[in-house]
Amino acid sequence: MKATLLHAPGDIRVEDVPDPSIVTPNDALVRVTAACVCGSDLWPYRGINKVSGPRRIGHEFVGIVEEVGSDVSTVRPGDFVIAPFLYSDGTCAHCQAGVHTSCVNGGGYGHPDVDGALVDAGQGEHVRLPYADGTLVSTPEVPDESQVPALLTLSDVMGTGWHAALSAGVEEGHTVVVVGDGAVGLCGVLAASRMGAERVIAMSRHEPRQAIARQFGATDVVEVRGDDAVAAVKELTDGIGADAVLECVGTGESMATAFGCARPGATVGFVGVPHDVDLPMGTMFGENVGLRGGVAPVRAYLPMLRDLVLAGEIDPGVVFDLELPLAEAAEAYAAMDERRAIKSLLRP
Amino acid sequence: MKATLLHAPGDIRVEDVPDPSIVTPNDALVRVTAACVCGSDLWPYRGINKVSGPRRIGHEFVGIVEEVGSDVSTVRPGDFVIAPFLYSDGTCAHCQAGVHTSCVNGGGYGHPDVDGALVDAGQGEHVRLPYADGTLVSTPEVPDESQVPALLTLSDVMGTGWHAALSAGVEEGHTVVVVGDGAVGLCGVLAASRMGAERVIAMSRHEPRQAIARQFGATDVVEVRGDDAVAAVKELTDGIGADAVLECVGTGESMATAFGCARPGATVGFVGVPHDVDLPMGTMFGENVGLRGGVAPVRAYLPMLRDLVLAGEIDPGVVFDLELPLAEAAEAYAAMDERRAIKSLLRP
Repeated sequence: MKATLLHAPGDIRVEDVPDPSIVTPNDALVRVTAACVCGSDLWPYRGINKVSGPRRIGHEFVGIVEEVGSDVSTVRPGDFVIAPFLYSDGTCAHCQAGVHTSCVNGGGYGHPDVDGALVDAGQGEHVRLPYADGTLVSTPEVPDESQVPALLTLSDVMGTGWHAALSAGVEEGHTVVVVGDGAVGLCGVLAASRMGAERVIAMSRHEPRQAIARQFGATDVVEVRGDDAVAAVKELTDGIGADAVLECVGTGESMATAFGCARPGATVGFVGVPHDVDLPMGTMFGENVGLRGGVAPVRAYLPMLRDLVLAGEIDPGVVFDLELPLAEAAEAYAAMDERRAIKSLLRP
Repeated sequence: MKATLLHAPGDIRVEDVPDPSIVTPNDALVRVTAACVCGSDLWPYRGINKVSGPRRIGHEFVGIVEEVGSDVSTVRPGDFVIAPFLYSDGTCAHCQAGVHTSCVNGGGYGHPDVDGALVDAGQGEHVRLPYADGTLVSTPEVPDESQVPALLTLSDVMGTGWHAALSAGVEEGHTVVVVGDGAVGLCGVLAASRMGAERVIAMSRHEPRQAIARQFGATDVVEVRGDDAVAAVKELTDGIGADAVLECVGTGESMATAFGCARPGATVGFVGVPHDVDLPMGTMFGENVGLRGGVAPVRAYLPMLRDLVLAGEIDPGVVFDLELPLAEAAEAYAAMDERRAIKSLLRP
């Protein structure tokens, strides 16, 4: 089959790799019908995370189940399934508590599982993955093509935006600030709005992203950065600050902005993978501004978000502004890297 | 009147200072009937926080209102009142949100208020404080002497322990770890227990403190520190970790222990003033362990905790294991500094 490999920073290729097959009784084999490129895929693509030799890449995909192992009971061949960006057994204490990302048997795509067999990455034609029952979420029937992009966002960005909002403690009537206008930040706007925030202040300097933010429920847009952004939020909130802040970038500057916008007693919900972040202990302690979040257990939110998508209540799929055949994965990466695209969808 | 002054590290004296009087219409003048020494008073006493010349000290006290300014309506002469460790106007957005510690007009005892008039510190015979309506909490009648120590803890340590538990998200049925066996940590045990924790694991190597912890609801005591303490908690929790962790010390080691004991998805509620703390971003992000808390807005909890004390439902007053006349304040400090006393009560 064809799959995407990252050979070196900036060097993405689609090549022939071995066809996967069922290895363990809890496996599923999925034919990928749509996959996408994640902001976190750009870290190794940009060489910020080390790349040592060709590696499979991609962790967001949906598709049709082709075959399952003998122990699998919740999905069957022909089902349309959404795969969260990590697989998980669904039965350990952490999965049971809704923190599937800490599953004792879980792991990431593109790496060997505990038995040493490769779990295929998502940007390819097929994926063999373990713990199918604990990982995959199916739809009652194969969805209409128009709903596929929205369902694909539940693999990662929509669930991650939801996690940011939940971690930040967004409640009905709140004023919420969202730092970051990538796909996750935009989905954070949608999540906060869906949770009943009265005011959602999006930070974005890019007109197309501002338009999506407004479509997702943003009531205000702040176009400046850093201290100026904090000042703008303070002015919008009568000097008080936001009730909840979503940090969806992961840099030192974005985290500082997030804390700067938070009112005393608020919580920053963070989902941007932190790179060179210093936390402001003085503000955290003195002003009681908390920090919660992390790698999002999207599996926990998937059934609920799937139902919202299928009912037409949310359409996070609009974050995809570029769609390409799998063979053009290199362009899908380049477009996101150069911020020509918010998020690229790939069709195997 | 007599009041305590810190002249230099280790040098506590009780001396004559000017009698205070009403300055602004929102003032109250309180005759202090009981005060105490706080763990945070030990930071300057030990020279870890700078001391530049003699300064008033003490921020926990109860007493009888002697006089009020013309605008004061919620307390009157003769009332028994409890003073939270910071004063606050009670009307600004932060006070209204229950974060009185961030009050725009608030401040600390022993320093001048916004008008430049000294707000007396708590370890003295009288205190003039501003914003009496937003600060002081009275009892329906002058309480029995036996209840005074418990009411005095509501000035700080009991409210702070409560804040730690609330910030950590303690819920019915939880397994909770409390790091720190000072008065705040012990009150944290009591708070967690009162909130319905099924299991409360106290960390203490001191038999008298262990006894109070058990009296306050601790079901387990861990006597080791650091990595050994984390291992002990993991063993007690089948390798899972605690649902909520209270960090009541503020050192780098205690914070590391707190994070080490937290299960994925848990929150560390921190109230120990941080000194040289590095936060484990990898654990926070990768395991979704949050951090919330800070300087406790005890004013927000005071009416509720007062009612629990007056109803005899909690008795945090047992944290006082030394009682001395105000004149012997130096010994009150020395005993706490040398860990001969958990907490010292002073009688002016």
